[in-house]
Amino acid sequence: MYQFPEAMKKLIRDLSKLPSVGEKTATRLAYHIINNDRHLAESLSESLLDAIVKTTFCNKCFNLSDDVICPICKDETRDKSLLCVVEKPVDVIAFERMGEYKGMYHVLHGLWAPLKGLGPEGMKLKELFERIKKDKVKEVILATSSTVEGDATSLLIADRLKDMNIKATRLAQGMSKGAELEFADDVTLSRAFANRFDF
Amino acid sequence: MYQFPEAMKKLIRDLSKLPSVGEKTATRLAYHIINNDRHLAESLSESLLDAIVKTTFCNKCFNLSDDVICPICKDETRDKSLLCVVEKPVDVIAFERMGEYKGMYHVLHGLWAPLKGLGPEGMKLKELFERIKKDKVKEVILATSSTVEGDATSLLIADRLKDMNIKATRLAQGMSKGAELEFADDVTLSRAFANRFDF
Repeated sequence: MYQFPEAMKKLIRDLSKLPSVGEKTATRLAYHIINNDRHLAESLSESLLDAIVKTTFCNKCFNLSDDVICPICKDETRDKSLLCVVEKPVDVIAFERMGEYKGMYHVLHGLWAPLKGLGPEGMKLKELFERIKKDKVKEVILATSSTVEGDATSLLIADRLKDMNIKATRLAQGMSKGAELEFADDVTLSRAFANRFDF
Repeated sequence: MYQFPEAMKKLIRDLSKLPSVGEKTATRLAYHIINNDRHLAESLSESLLDAIVKTTFCNKCFNLSDDVICPICKDETRDKSLLCVVEKPVDVIAFERMGEYKGMYHVLHGLWAPLKGLGPEGMKLKELFERIKKDKVKEVILATSSTVEGDATSLLIADRLKDMNIKATRLAQGMSKGAELEFADDVTLSRAFANRFDF
């Protein structure tokens, strides 16, 4: 049976290894690249190699970095006694976009998800506790997502911090700004209700 | 403000130039590549270059090919008097998968879509009519999609073929195998009704 040329088939195979890209999407992307945008192919080919060669992880906070120590960890003006624990590098971007936080970060690179077979050993936990001791951190802000796994991971860390006598805080949970009551899920609403405040 | 390392930003920029990949998806893909699958980055980088260097278009039918003439056009056992006109290379794959067609193909690389500002000049139409004359084609099967643009393109070609005294056929339109009446759209149902046949 007739098939695509070998080089195109390999490109489709590789593209479909990307997360949430199936064979149909991969075929459409490959066709677009070959048919309409050969310049993009060259540029993307170079970016891919560049990204893996030049991008590494910060030795202190494990955020993405182009150096052994990332710009945030290098920044002398930031408050080293405040440590914000997040799941992944994109979360650091979100926190920095907010613009109100001037402490340090620690990227876990994973969450505790026993149902998915992911234990705490996959996360940068040992490094977190070593760092907390060494840098004399006073408050740890547990900023993992408000999901089951995010909550479990935060609880796990908070438990250990209690033993170490270090203050642990969690991001507040409630209604999103602009969210309509009608469409709020039960858990969100119940947390917003429990954490209601006086005017 | 803190941002991703430069090489990662360029990778995100390039990935988001792919069709239907926005900045969020591009970030997720780039993060996956850098964090979990550096081997995929190398392989994909090579496939991209390989695909644009080694994949070309057949000089006769304009299907994707790794040679000047594609394997289908080279195949002496196929019926040269029968020509199936399709929009894009994937359509050839679909037709070949069916396994019942032994004629030739012609890939238009586009459809007539005046509402999208796409005129007939973008398609391989001149080449189609030249080829029909030269190869003494007896029947042209218009196998563009059953969309407004597909219908318009087929009508446009059928009109010209009438002047040339060449038989033009269109794929039958009706209910898909396994489709439920309840969920059929009006146009499909009306076409299936108009083309009903005797037992």
